[in-house]
Amino acid sequence: MSITSFHPTPRTLMGPGPSDVSPRVLEALSRPTIGHLDPEFVGMMDEVKAMLQYAFQTKNEFTIAVSAPGSAGMETCFVNLVEPGEKVIVCVNGVFGGRMVENVERLGATAIIVNDDWGKPVDPQKVETALEQNPDAKFVAFVHAETSTGALSDAKLLCQIAQKHNALTIVDAVTSLGGVELRVDEWGIDAIYSGSQKCMSCVPGISPVSFGPRAIEKLKAREGKVPSWFLDQTLVMSYWSGEGKRSYHHTAPVNSLYALHESLVMLQNEGLENAWARHKTQHEALKAGLTEMGIEFIVDEAHRLPQLNTIKIPEGVDDAAVRSTLLNEYNLEIGAGLGAFAGKAWRIGLMGYAARSENVMLCLAALKSALGK
Amino acid sequence: MSITSFHPTPRTLMGPGPSDVSPRVLEALSRPTIGHLDPEFVGMMDEVKAMLQYAFQTKNEFTIAVSAPGSAGMETCFVNLVEPGEKVIVCVNGVFGGRMVENVERLGATAIIVNDDWGKPVDPQKVETALEQNPDAKFVAFVHAETSTGALSDAKLLCQIAQKHNALTIVDAVTSLGGVELRVDEWGIDAIYSGSQKCMSCVPGISPVSFGPRAIEKLKAREGKVPSWFLDQTLVMSYWSGEGKRSYHHTAPVNSLYALHESLVMLQNEGLENAWARHKTQHEALKAGLTEMGIEFIVDEAHRLPQLNTIKIPEGVDDAAVRSTLLNEYNLEIGAGLGAFAGKAWRIGLMGYAARSENVMLCLAALKSALGK
Repeated sequence: MSITSFHPTPRTLMGPGPSDVSPRVLEALSRPTIGHLDPEFVGMMDEVKAMLQYAFQTKNEFTIAVSAPGSAGMETCFVNLVEPGEKVIVCVNGVFGGRMVENVERLGATAIIVNDDWGKPVDPQKVETALEQNPDAKFVAFVHAETSTGALSDAKLLCQIAQKHNALTIVDAVTSLGGVELRVDEWGIDAIYSGSQKCMSCVPGISPVSFGPRAIEKLKAREGKVPSWFLDQTLVMSYWSGEGKRSYHHTAPVNSLYALHESLVMLQNEGLENAWARHKTQHEALKAGLTEMGIEFIVDEAHRLPQLNTIKIPEGVDDAAVRSTLLNEYNLEIGAGLGAFAGKAWRIGLMGYAARSENVMLCLAALKSALGK
Repeated sequence: MSITSFHPTPRTLMGPGPSDVSPRVLEALSRPTIGHLDPEFVGMMDEVKAMLQYAFQTKNEFTIAVSAPGSAGMETCFVNLVEPGEKVIVCVNGVFGGRMVENVERLGATAIIVNDDWGKPVDPQKVETALEQNPDAKFVAFVHAETSTGALSDAKLLCQIAQKHNALTIVDAVTSLGGVELRVDEWGIDAIYSGSQKCMSCVPGISPVSFGPRAIEKLKAREGKVPSWFLDQTLVMSYWSGEGKRSYHHTAPVNSLYALHESLVMLQNEGLENAWARHKTQHEALKAGLTEMGIEFIVDEAHRLPQLNTIKIPEGVDDAAVRSTLLNEYNLEIGAGLGAFAGKAWRIGLMGYAARSENVMLCLAALKSALGK
């Protein structure tokens, strides 16, 4: 066996994530590793926390970065808050709502599923009805921006409905954070998780999470221990907060947190509203070009995610062949359809650092060429 | 709020981990991010797998890198293999054995605890007795190299005893992998996990895991689903193996895997036995210097880990003040005592890239100066 160093071909990442990582973030990632209890590192963690509070638009003290990808962020919310036997209204309009159901059921809790068609947003009326029919439901869980379909749901309204029925909300913001309007405190979101590799322009592997006061109260009132030691936030809290001394829980992914810190500095400097506007502007440019090529969107304009464009594969076109051409000839990655959309849709991401004019231009030109237009 | 980029002060990391990361690994870490389903990336994953098989000395097909730190590697083994109501013999001779007990109990299984004093290896006779008294025990779990105490247990003998009683073994190799002799197949280890940030010279955040045929059989014969979706290896398998097409489970920590790949290339080039010998050589040099200063080791010579030297804090010496001096004046991190050893011991790591002559020299000279000798 003689394996040599791996040198990836640089790609333009316009799939559903990971998306293009800023060179600034890659440089930060490679800074010298220091100890996870080094006072300098603890100070950096406090800054990450403050900047995540800004990104989430929250004052939640418990706002941290879970040391694993978005799926672990999802599991962090469910495993800490949902207890066996409890009822959770889970809105399913794509792959990630389905994953939430898996989380609920594996905890020995009951998922009351509110189904909506793929490509449609969650229907608030159905959620209201489910809550009326299940007055003992403790939670409403939904995906803000469905990465599998490109549909944006009305998180503000869904949270209002949940609050009216005294249910806590668990919100998936993996693809929404930094890409579209999201206001945790104003909208009254109780628990939220995201991922580093979408609109944050950062490398994959980290999941920002925030718990509001009602979620913390629910966690502290649990009957038994959290089933997962690694994700037990009552333990993780003593590493991410406290004056002065922090207790060791697990070894933090030091360098990945440098990267997240840098991406958050960039977001802070750009301004959150400006980042949202940039995603919208680049989406408009992409839309104009695609429309000119006769390519249709799957999601209605009113619920369309600017950062994830799900389009119909034109009649008679070979899905895999086109994606291969884009990858091999232009080093451009776009996403395949997932689940119900496999073979029927492409997903073009304009997330974070990838939401730039040069990316839109390359994508349109390369797609035109690959389609022989 | 105006937070600026974080530039850590470069440190020499001679604590219990994270340990010094090779500049080659830091450079690899910052290579351009590509997609987690990109054929180039999938090819790299196959190489990581082959090199992990070499590092673990196993032919186990299921040898992967969990997308989270060592604690999640531990949880991966327990959550997949141990079912509610089952009995697990857990050997506790430090912090990490205690963490195994937490894992077992949170799964609704029963931990039969075999206690040994901190600083001592696991006593094989006690394990044999526990197995005789609990013929229904399905597993023996132990820590090969206890990071909290610096003691090495006889993994080969413990596995022989477990096999005699038809119990599967779950072994913590977080600190042992790459630092001392470890032979998964020859010793008959059924499930093993490690960490990237110790003797692998890599950044923290990744946990190599390997399951042998008996473990896979146990996993496949489970009655219910694995309680954790994120760590469910029946799902992860379809991403880490299979001819050609890999199924999406979660987004892999792409750049951290570049880093692990590079650290494994370095290990392969050095040769595993040479790496073990290097740790031993540097340990001998450190030991000679410490002994000259009148500093005593806590662990008996026969069971001492070369890569983690646990020493008694000399009488009358201010623990925290000395560690602060080392950190602030010499940018040298050594480890505090954990648990029962807090305030009583220091832990000097010589792990991976940190096991070099210049590190030993710096550590001895700086410690001498800080102690006023």
